Amino acid sequence: MPQFQINYLGCGSASPTLRHLPSCQVVDFRNNLFMIDCGECAQLSMRRQKLKYSRLGHIFISHLHGDHCLGLPGLVSTLALTGGRDGGTLTIHTFKEGAEMFKRMIDFFCHMPPFDIEFNIIDPQSTQTIFENDAITVRSFPLYHRLPCVGFIFEEKPKLRHLNGEIARFFNVPVALYADIKRGADFVTEDGTVIKNERLTTPADKSSSYAYCSDTMFNPKVAESVQGVHTIYHEATYCDDQIVKARERFHSTASQAAKIATLAGAEQLVLGHFSKSYHDEQRHLSEAREIFPNTLIAHEGMVLPL
Amino acid sequence: MPQFQINYLGCGSASPTLRHLPSCQVVDFRNNLFMIDCGECAQLSMRRQKLKYSRLGHIFISHLHGDHCLGLPGLVSTLALTGGRDGGTLTIHTFKEGAEMFKRMIDFFCHMPPFDIEFNIIDPQSTQTIFENDAITVRSFPLYHRLPCVGFIFEEKPKLRHLNGEIARFFNVPVALYADIKRGADFVTEDGTVIKNERLTTPADKSSSYAYCSDTMFNPKVAESVQGVHTIYHEATYCDDQIVKARERFHSTASQAAKIATLAGAEQLVLGHFSKSYHDEQRHLSEAREIFPNTLIAHEGMVLPL
Repeated sequence: MPQFQINYLGCGSASPTLRHLPSCQVVDFRNNLFMIDCGECAQLSMRRQKLKYSRLGHIFISHLHGDHCLGLPGLVSTLALTGGRDGGTLTIHTFKEGAEMFKRMIDFFCHMPPFDIEFNIIDPQSTQTIFENDAITVRSFPLYHRLPCVGFIFEEKPKLRHLNGEIARFFNVPVALYADIKRGADFVTEDGTVIKNERLTTPADKSSSYAYCSDTMFNPKVAESVQGVHTIYHEATYCDDQIVKARERFHSTASQAAKIATLAGAEQLVLGHFSKSYHDEQRHLSEAREIFPNTLIAHEGMVLPL
Repeated sequence: MPQFQINYLGCGSASPTLRHLPSCQVVDFRNNLFMIDCGECAQLSMRRQKLKYSRLGHIFISHLHGDHCLGLPGLVSTLALTGGRDGGTLTIHTFKEGAEMFKRMIDFFCHMPPFDIEFNIIDPQSTQTIFENDAITVRSFPLYHRLPCVGFIFEEKPKLRHLNGEIARFFNVPVALYADIKRGADFVTEDGTVIKNERLTTPADKSSSYAYCSDTMFNPKVAESVQGVHTIYHEATYCDDQIVKARERFHSTASQAAKIATLAGAEQLVLGHFSKSYHDEQRHLSEAREIFPNTLIAHEGMVLPL
C-alpha cells in the first residue's frame, strides 16, 4: 500500500495533443485517492493507471476552465453506473459557481448514483483548510490566473514515533500505553520512576507534503503560500522563448516555476501543463534545472512516491 | 479527397474500457465532416485520426446519455481556442432539452468562440429530414431505448451521369449544356434532331447511404426505418448469452442487429457499442455472421469507405 504518492494522469494545457491529456492528478494517500483537477478522459486514465474508482473520495477543482474539470460528469456517471462504489460520499471541492454547474450536469447525466455527492465550497480569495482527517490536511490558496483559481497543499500530519519494543518490554510498559508513547508521552513505572520518551522511542519518519500550483502566472506570493512544502508541482506552460505570451495568458514559464520552487525552499519541483506548441519538454527541463536542479517533467502514467 | 467514408472514434458502451472509447463517429463526405455522437475524448480521437477540426460543420446527438455526448463541451472549447476554425457555423442537432443543457455548458466553458453555434432541434418521435444540401440528406428516425433516442440516415443524392466527351464533341454539344446533360437531358441539334441522353452519357455511379442505429433494443420498426440503406451500423452491446439483460436495458445483441440488417435488405452491417463484459468481439462477429454474413466489427481508428 503506497503511503503517499502522486499519479499523473494529464499533463497538457488547454488543447489536448497526442502526447498530453488535460490536467488531472491523483494523490494516493494510504489507500485513499484524492483527485486534483479532472480534465476530459480522467476516468479512462484512472482505469489505465489501475486506480480503483472505489477508493476515490474527494475531487479538488482548481478553477473552472474546461481542461481542468470537463472529465467530471463522465467520471461521476461511470462511478454511478459501475456500481463498484456503493455507499459513502464523493466530495467535490470547488467554487460556488462550479458547484452549481456541476450539480446541474450531474443531475442531468447521472441517474441516482448509489452514493452521496457533496459539494464543499472553496473561497478562491483566501487560504483555508478544506479537508482534514487524522493523517492529512488539504489547504487551498489563491493563484493568479485569468479567472479565480486556487492551488492545493496536501500535508501529511506528524507521524508517530517508533516504539522500541525491547525497551518497552524491559520496563513492563502496558500495551495500552503504546499509542500515547508513540505520540511522545513519557512512561512512569510502578515505583514512580519517569522513563523519558527518548529512551522508549526513535524519531518518527519525516512527514511529506505536496503543493499543486496550476494555472498561474509568476507571482512570488505563490512561493509564500507553499513555503516549506517538500514537492511542488508548478505549471510551466511555456519556456522563456514565450515569456511575453505566458504573462499575457496568465501562465508561467519553466524558469519562473523554478524560481517559485527556490523561493519556497522546496526539495523537489515537478513541471506540467505544457503548451501544445512544444514537441517535447527538454527545453522546459534545462531552463528550470539551471535555476532549480531537482526538477522533474511530469508525464502521463508517471508515479511519484513522496 | 474521400467521397463518403465513416471514421470510427469510439465503439464502447457506457463504461469506457482500455479497448473502447464511448460512442463517436465521423462521416467524411466530400471533405465535410459530420460527427455522430460525441462521447468523452472525441476531440482527442479526432486529432489522433487526423480529422481536421476546421472541416467539422455538424454534430448529431442520438440521445442524452453521457457516453454519447459528454465530449461536446470539451470539443467546442477546443474549437473555440485553437482558432483553426474562424467564422462559419457549427450546428448541433439534438433534442430540445439537450440544446438547453449544451448551450448552458458551452456558455459556461467556452468564452466567445470565433464562430456561430446553432442548435437544430430534433423531434425524437418522428422521422424527419434534419439536414440537406446539394449532395446529401440526413434524416433522423426513432429508436427504442430507455429514454428518447434517434438514429440517423446519411443518404447521398443521385449522382450525375458520366458525359461521353467524344460523342458530345461529335454532335457539337455546347459546353454550357454539359451540366444539364449529366443530369439526364437530351440534346437537340441545330437541325432539330434529338440525341437521346443514353447516347451522350453512361450511368451515374451508385449513390451510397449509411444508417446509425444506437442505442436501441431490437425492434423490427428500425428495419422499416432503414429499409434499403447500403450500410447499417447497429449497436450490439451484448451477445446472445446476455439477451435477457439486453432487453432489460433496452440494448441489442449481435444477432438481433443482424436480423435488423437482414430485414432492412442492407448490403453491409457494422457492429459497435460493445459492453465492457466482453474481452473481445469474436463472439459478436460469429453470432451476427450466422444470420448476416457481411458483418464487420467496428474498432477505434477504423475507416470504412462506402
